[in-house]
Amino acid sequence: MPINPNAAIEITAFRWVPDFAQGLVRDLRARWALEEAGLDYRVRLLDQQRPPEYLLEQPFDQVPCLSDGTVRIFETGAIVQYVGEKSEALLPRDEQGRFRAIQWTYAALNSVEPAILGLLSVDFFYPDEEWAKLRRPGAEAFVKQKLKRVSEWLGDKQWLEGDRFTIGDLIMVTELRFLRHTKLVAEFPNLAAFLKRGEARPAFQRARADQLATYAANQPQPEPEGAAA
Amino acid sequence: MPINPNAAIEITAFRWVPDFAQGLVRDLRARWALEEAGLDYRVRLLDQQRPPEYLLEQPFDQVPCLSDGTVRIFETGAIVQYVGEKSEALLPRDEQGRFRAIQWTYAALNSVEPAILGLLSVDFFYPDEEWAKLRRPGAEAFVKQKLKRVSEWLGDKQWLEGDRFTIGDLIMVTELRFLRHTKLVAEFPNLAAFLKRGEARPAFQRARADQLATYAANQPQPEPEGAAA
Repeated sequence: MPINPNAAIEITAFRWVPDFAQGLVRDLRARWALEEAGLDYRVRLLDQQRPPEYLLEQPFDQVPCLSDGTVRIFETGAIVQYVGEKSEALLPRDEQGRFRAIQWTYAALNSVEPAILGLLSVDFFYPDEEWAKLRRPGAEAFVKQKLKRVSEWLGDKQWLEGDRFTIGDLIMVTELRFLRHTKLVAEFPNLAAFLKRGEARPAFQRARADQLATYAANQPQPEPEGAAA
Repeated sequence: MPINPNAAIEITAFRWVPDFAQGLVRDLRARWALEEAGLDYRVRLLDQQRPPEYLLEQPFDQVPCLSDGTVRIFETGAIVQYVGEKSEALLPRDEQGRFRAIQWTYAALNSVEPAILGLLSVDFFYPDEEWAKLRRPGAEAFVKQKLKRVSEWLGDKQWLEGDRFTIGDLIMVTELRFLRHTKLVAEFPNLAAFLKRGEARPAFQRARADQLATYAANQPQPEPEGAAA
């Protein structure tokens, strides 16, 4: 269990988030990478209302940040790459293998995620707005187009570059998980199997369990009856 | 002039694109990085209709790809990082400096660009659709929120991490350039100055001139009058 209050590596995470986001918040990526690498880490929990000075650590007011001695970074892509450089388990050491993994990390975040964010925006953030209802078919079609590209590339390979799991697969699996409220991934059986393989990894299981355990321990208490009056 | 038909490094680019995209297509990022690094490169030009086998090189059917001996990669984030690792001019060698630059590359592509793509989608790809008209104020507000975050971080620094230009600045400047059809960047004087500093770099000037020269040389000929009948 890499969670260790005395660990050198610290990440930030939320104390609690609503159900729809549980298991999706991005500290999961950092936890998963650290579990794969077998590196101990500790967690600094933040309330949904972050203190203003958090912007000095994370200018976009998101989680996670990572600190490790003199290294302080944010952005999950950079964090998983940092962890990958500590552990060959996540990032091959030969130049081509290394950059293919890095390339898929960027591809997941920049060629796939923007389409997915468009659909999440419609479905979770603006579901009742007229523009969102009108846009939904197009937003879904855009996601399917991206999934088709990844599916065609993946073919019958186990991971995006073959037999070896890398940071690129880790980030791509977390992208597909953002679509769990839809049946879109199931339309591409090889992507569904890729997702299942990723989620079956013991490191993923531990990372998710730890994220969810924190939320369960910090579940807001319901107001006592009558208190709202 | 790093363009050299005998160079080891090859990038892909389009032969021609319509006016609204000229100077914005992503091979500009690769060209700029290569110019900053002083590395020779050659260009393989593609028609807008790419051959189906291009998907084996670039699964999302975009430009650029980079090849350099046995290394073959796509995604501009990975490409500029690859070039950065060849040249300290773009990527510091100490661990913290290196990862701060990588972090800003990811941040530009994943924390800023999705908002900008939302606005470009409305303005360039679906301007006549009802959803796009209804969405535009929200899409613009989302971009402004991201610009505000970057502006507050930047403060009066020259570049995102201080005095030294890195791949993170290079990608962030190209993000701001995507907004050239709006006045949004001008609302943040320090971002406008940052953009201007980036565009004033000789390496950027050469990269842009080379991209535009290709389009000018391959401008489609207008149909002879009456030919459409």
